[in-house]
Amino acid sequence: MKRQFAVIGLGRFGGSVCCALIEQGVEVLAIDQCEAKVNQYRDVVTHAVVADSTDEQALRHLGIRNFEHVIVAIGDNIQASILTTLILDELGVEHITVKAQNDYHEKVLVKIGAERIVHPERDMGARIAHHLMSKNVLDYLEVSDKYSIIEMFAGSKMHAKTLVELNVRAAFGCNVMAIKRGAEMIVSPKADQLIEQDDLLIVLGADEDIKRFEQMFDDTK
Amino acid sequence: MKRQFAVIGLGRFGGSVCCALIEQGVEVLAIDQCEAKVNQYRDVVTHAVVADSTDEQALRHLGIRNFEHVIVAIGDNIQASILTTLILDELGVEHITVKAQNDYHEKVLVKIGAERIVHPERDMGARIAHHLMSKNVLDYLEVSDKYSIIEMFAGSKMHAKTLVELNVRAAFGCNVMAIKRGAEMIVSPKADQLIEQDDLLIVLGADEDIKRFEQMFDDTK
Ligand SMILES: Nc1ncnc2c1ncn2[C@@H]1O[C@H](COP(=O)(O)OP(=O)(O)OP(=O)(O)O)[C@@H](O)[C@H]1O
Ligand SMILES: Nc1ncnc2c1ncn2[C@@H]1O[C@H](COP(=O)(O)OP(=O)(O)OP(=O)(O)O)[C@@H](O)[C@H]1O
Ligand SMILES: [Ca+2]
Ligand SMILES: [Ca+2]
Ligand SMILES: [Ca+2]
Ligand SMILES: [Ca+2]
Repeated sequence: MKRQFAVIGLGRFGGSVCCALIEQGVEVLAIDQCEAKVNQYRDVVTHAVVADSTDEQALRHLGIRNFEHVIVAIGDNIQASILTTLILDELGVEHITVKAQNDYHEKVLVKIGAERIVHPERDMGARIAHHLMSKNVLDYLEVSDKYSIIEMFAGSKMHAKTLVELNVRAAFGCNVMAIKRGAEMIVSPKADQLIEQDDLLIVLGADEDIKRFEQMFDDTK
Repeated sequence: MKRQFAVIGLGRFGGSVCCALIEQGVEVLAIDQCEAKVNQYRDVVTHAVVADSTDEQALRHLGIRNFEHVIVAIGDNIQASILTTLILDELGVEHITVKAQNDYHEKVLVKIGAERIVHPERDMGARIAHHLMSKNVLDYLEVSDKYSIIEMFAGSKMHAKTLVELNVRAAFGCNVMAIKRGAEMIVSPKADQLIEQDDLLIVLGADEDIKRFEQMFDDTK
């Protein structure tokens, strides 16, 4: 049997969670009180139903407790988000992830049984700030307080040089973990690997080292 | 002189962009029409001012065109977001990044001069779906259509085994790029590296391969 997830609230966040879960190969029940939203996702998910998630009977009839994981993606209506979480917990749903609006909302959610809290807007702020800092940086993953992975375009300053010539490791303390070149992926490139302008580099390093590295090869400077 | 960014709209997304930019060492001018929001960020950013960004004179007086990059993080009021972007472009701001509410909003923004459009809620949906799929997966970065990097806890099934014993590369086609162990970071681990239960592995691979790898070592199964 396929794994079964339910998503309550089909705003931008909830809707995109649905799509990504389906892509990952699980079954998704999508719930929203708004019929237009439900229709929008009808052809994407396994089942889509119009229901008010603050109505315990409605959730019970949907057999919600049989779902492995329920994601509550109700935003502005904090009261509905809290009440829904409470009901899910009482109905015995094991894994509950809830989108929180702020820290107070988060605290309440944790107390009433939410297993994981997410703050999409806040988390994306940090990621996007990194893109803004350098024209070459495409994406960014914080590995720890001190370490990150960035995806950056090689750009003209790296063109036709090898990793050792660029002194990536010795001078910058950064590690090029992989190079994306068109559809090809060069994993763990050797020191004599030649870089091309359009290469996308996956670089791991301490934040300070990455910053120096980004700045040195930023095409806009 | 330090680099200068301006952020208009201090919701959750805009506020977190401000904090991350300051952390990256640039100067940030934060603008919101709501005084409470401005007060909230007064001690975080370089300057914080109450202003309506649809008021061209107000933006002109702030010397907005001298800022390297302006981020428009106005959400629900699509009209204000569009008008603000238009004014910024006319005042000659070179780099404008705007948070969009939907695809129509995005199309308009691109036409009137926004350089980059971001969809925080939508983008986080995809990322969080990956966390939900496996208890061990902490974070996720899409490198290309086919390749991703995941951060995952080793868990009990990997404990006291070497990478070669786990057959990470041969059987799963995945590459462990680094291991985070407490404050220590083991970059490019050798094949005979012993894994400990609490290690955080940074794994690069094709999406299908990563999925098989995650599932094989998921502690919950
Ligand atoms: N009690 C409820 N039962 C079912 N669905 C609900 C309930 N309350 C709200 N919703 C739905 O949740 C969805 C998301 O809510 P809302 O638009 O407030 O969130 P949001 O955080 O603004 O979303 P976004 O991810 O787009 O930022 C809406 O489509 C709304 O109809
Ligand atoms: N014309 C304007 N001038 C200045 N600030 C504005 C203007 N219009 C809206 N704002 C501010 O933008 C901020 C963000 O707007 P809003 O709360 O609608 O966005 P949001 O997308 O819901 O935010 P979040 O990132 O929290 O989801 C608010 O603090 C609001 O006061
Ligand atoms: Ca909404
Ligand atoms: Ca919202
Ligand atoms: Ca939002
Ligand atoms: Ca809002």
